Amino acid sequence: MKIICCIRVCVPSLLSLFFIAHAFGQSIGVPVSPLGEGPWILDTAEQHKIRVSVVARGLSHPWAIAFLPDENILVTERPGRLRLIRDGVLDSLPISGTPNVRTDGNGGLMDVAVHPEFSENGLIYLTYTKPMGNGWGAPALAVGQLVGHVLTDLRDLVVTEAYEGNSGLNGRVAFGSDGKVYMSTGGRVGDAAQDPMSLRGKVLRLEDDGTMPADNPFLNRFNYRPEIYTLGHRNTLGLMLHPNTGEMWQHENGPNGGDEINILSPGGNYGWPIVSFGRFYSGERVNDNPVREGLESPLLVWLPAIAASGIAVYTGDQFPAWKGNVFIGSLRMGGIPGTGHLQRIVFNERTEEMRREIMLTELNRRIREVREGPDGFLYLLTDEESDGALLMIEPAI
Amino acid sequence: MKIICCIRVCVPSLLSLFFIAHAFGQSIGVPVSPLGEGPWILDTAEQHKIRVSVVARGLSHPWAIAFLPDENILVTERPGRLRLIRDGVLDSLPISGTPNVRTDGNGGLMDVAVHPEFSENGLIYLTYTKPMGNGWGAPALAVGQLVGHVLTDLRDLVVTEAYEGNSGLNGRVAFGSDGKVYMSTGGRVGDAAQDPMSLRGKVLRLEDDGTMPADNPFLNRFNYRPEIYTLGHRNTLGLMLHPNTGEMWQHENGPNGGDEINILSPGGNYGWPIVSFGRFYSGERVNDNPVREGLESPLLVWLPAIAASGIAVYTGDQFPAWKGNVFIGSLRMGGIPGTGHLQRIVFNERTEEMRREIMLTELNRRIREVREGPDGFLYLLTDEESDGALLMIEPAI
Repeated sequence: MKIICCIRVCVPSLLSLFFIAHAFGQSIGVPVSPLGEGPWILDTAEQHKIRVSVVARGLSHPWAIAFLPDENILVTERPGRLRLIRDGVLDSLPISGTPNVRTDGNGGLMDVAVHPEFSENGLIYLTYTKPMGNGWGAPALAVGQLVGHVLTDLRDLVVTEAYEGNSGLNGRVAFGSDGKVYMSTGGRVGDAAQDPMSLRGKVLRLEDDGTMPADNPFLNRFNYRPEIYTLGHRNTLGLMLHPNTGEMWQHENGPNGGDEINILSPGGNYGWPIVSFGRFYSGERVNDNPVREGLESPLLVWLPAIAASGIAVYTGDQFPAWKGNVFIGSLRMGGIPGTGHLQRIVFNERTEEMRREIMLTELNRRIREVREGPDGFLYLLTDEESDGALLMIEPAI
Repeated sequence: MKIICCIRVCVPSLLSLFFIAHAFGQSIGVPVSPLGEGPWILDTAEQHKIRVSVVARGLSHPWAIAFLPDENILVTERPGRLRLIRDGVLDSLPISGTPNVRTDGNGGLMDVAVHPEFSENGLIYLTYTKPMGNGWGAPALAVGQLVGHVLTDLRDLVVTEAYEGNSGLNGRVAFGSDGKVYMSTGGRVGDAAQDPMSLRGKVLRLEDDGTMPADNPFLNRFNYRPEIYTLGHRNTLGLMLHPNTGEMWQHENGPNGGDEINILSPGGNYGWPIVSFGRFYSGERVNDNPVREGLESPLLVWLPAIAASGIAVYTGDQFPAWKGNVFIGSLRMGGIPGTGHLQRIVFNERTEEMRREIMLTELNRRIREVREGPDGFLYLLTDEESDGALLMIEPAI
């Protein structure tokens, strides 16, 4: 069913604005209206008005953003394309030389990270689902050198166990303050996330050339994979070097409720599937007590689930009231698929949660990724089959 | 700042509708626009379109709804008025004979319950804050006989300990399937909710004349108040006889996160302030482990808090897809004061949570109360200083 929706908003003290939006469509099984042209002027809690505009659109399931030193933007598309946004304009040709991907369900080309010394070495890192034959796919990490519009010398640094289905294939990659490469792997299936000989449901830690760091927590432990940095993760959709503290922050989706943010400590076990604040899809609790000695408790939990996807800490000067706040993308609104939002979380100086704000519900979009740009604006990706967009958030006077 | 917002929505397959709404205002410290005239046609997840319309407005902090056997509606206003909606029209004169109330902060006239044999005895029950001198107030329960437009023979059945401030004064009242009267009291302050000699932070159980039922769980226990049915409650804003199971359902607000629904069992201790899924306003967790032997765990938790207020189970025929679903009002949206929503919760046959839907965000209203009418429609109250409204939800074809 199509809804044509014409909204005229008159704000006396502002310039008159015409824009298209649709406020009605938090729905399951009900098609969500297309994203309008924008820009949208929206109220927020502490920053007051913001302006949300479209930088690029027509993307297919865009998954991740990375900023290059020249402030151009890399965007991955899950079907297997790496796109370049040069001076604010989307290059029509994808970057060549990217890996072949198995693309069904959650798999495909996922995250992209830029080497801290990219200006010298041109290296970028990609997580993707590597086709392994017979329809199976293996979450993998590859590195290549970006030369102009071509990715050269692509090679795999990690290829994890293959899956037949599409469960838990998501993977993020990020550089730590120690210059190491951190890669997350999905662990939804069975007890793999607790199995120290499996790479599933882990965060891995590698040198930038894929070798084992000498100080990895399980390096010389019998029956442990040496790549493992942390274990017991279900479905990590966010992995970030906290720009102020140097810690690695991670977030993962619970099954039915129980999405969580963790601050990673070496060798930590984050509990899946032994403990969770969530429930199985049948309704049963994962366990009666979500806290257990020897297992790390999350920093923050969502009940119900919001399908958290993407994390950023705001450090810029454009939004003074947001300094140090954590932003999280959401692929669903209050537990119902089909629409999402952006969440802002305020912590105190002890990194204890103070409050959360739900933003951008007016756009009715699944938010896949959120990053701060070098210009101090926030950048988001909306998850759509054929019209995924890169959005920018600026202050509106 | 005022926003004048004119929305014209054209739905090809429906009648053309003109209505006023405002989709932009989830805000703290930013005035929220007035409620438009309605009706609003909104999408929902499983029932598809609904029609929300205004039955009555201009109410001051309306708090509770009760339906009389003749289908007329009683509505309390927190400043101390009991209003009657007769054949869909708000009587301009409040019902006389209601108790004087102390009305600041959360206190005042709160809940209203109709005796199951109202047709014979005309009794209605009111929770309110009784003025105790020097600005102090005591949560109290009164009963009176409604004769036409007058409440007669008003007398107090319970007067609990007086408070100086306005914390935790909220109280609900409901009849159980056993014909007893259940009354909740706030327990935010100190350890009162755990003190068996205090009536704070409890659910009390009384005969309809205020005397002690012979089977109350602590009736002959030394140093226990005999009225106590359950203890360890923080701030109960919902108390309901589940129409299908006969159980008493209760929900209460956590401090900063950790709102919860409980199914009450006689003598149960629901944990406040020993355990909670929430945090103190300073950010610190109430405790590292929200689950403890000997304390009842909630049926369902919200993180972040939604300031749950009002609960109903849908039993009617107007919304077949909602049969058996639980509806909860919310006074805030994702932890930010100023706006709320209606939440629908689906349980399976083992009363395990399956999913939740967030509805009515488009209206940007704090929802104080939700009830099913005898007509099978849902009725809500919006919490406003001077233009609180009684809303009705019907299916929209």
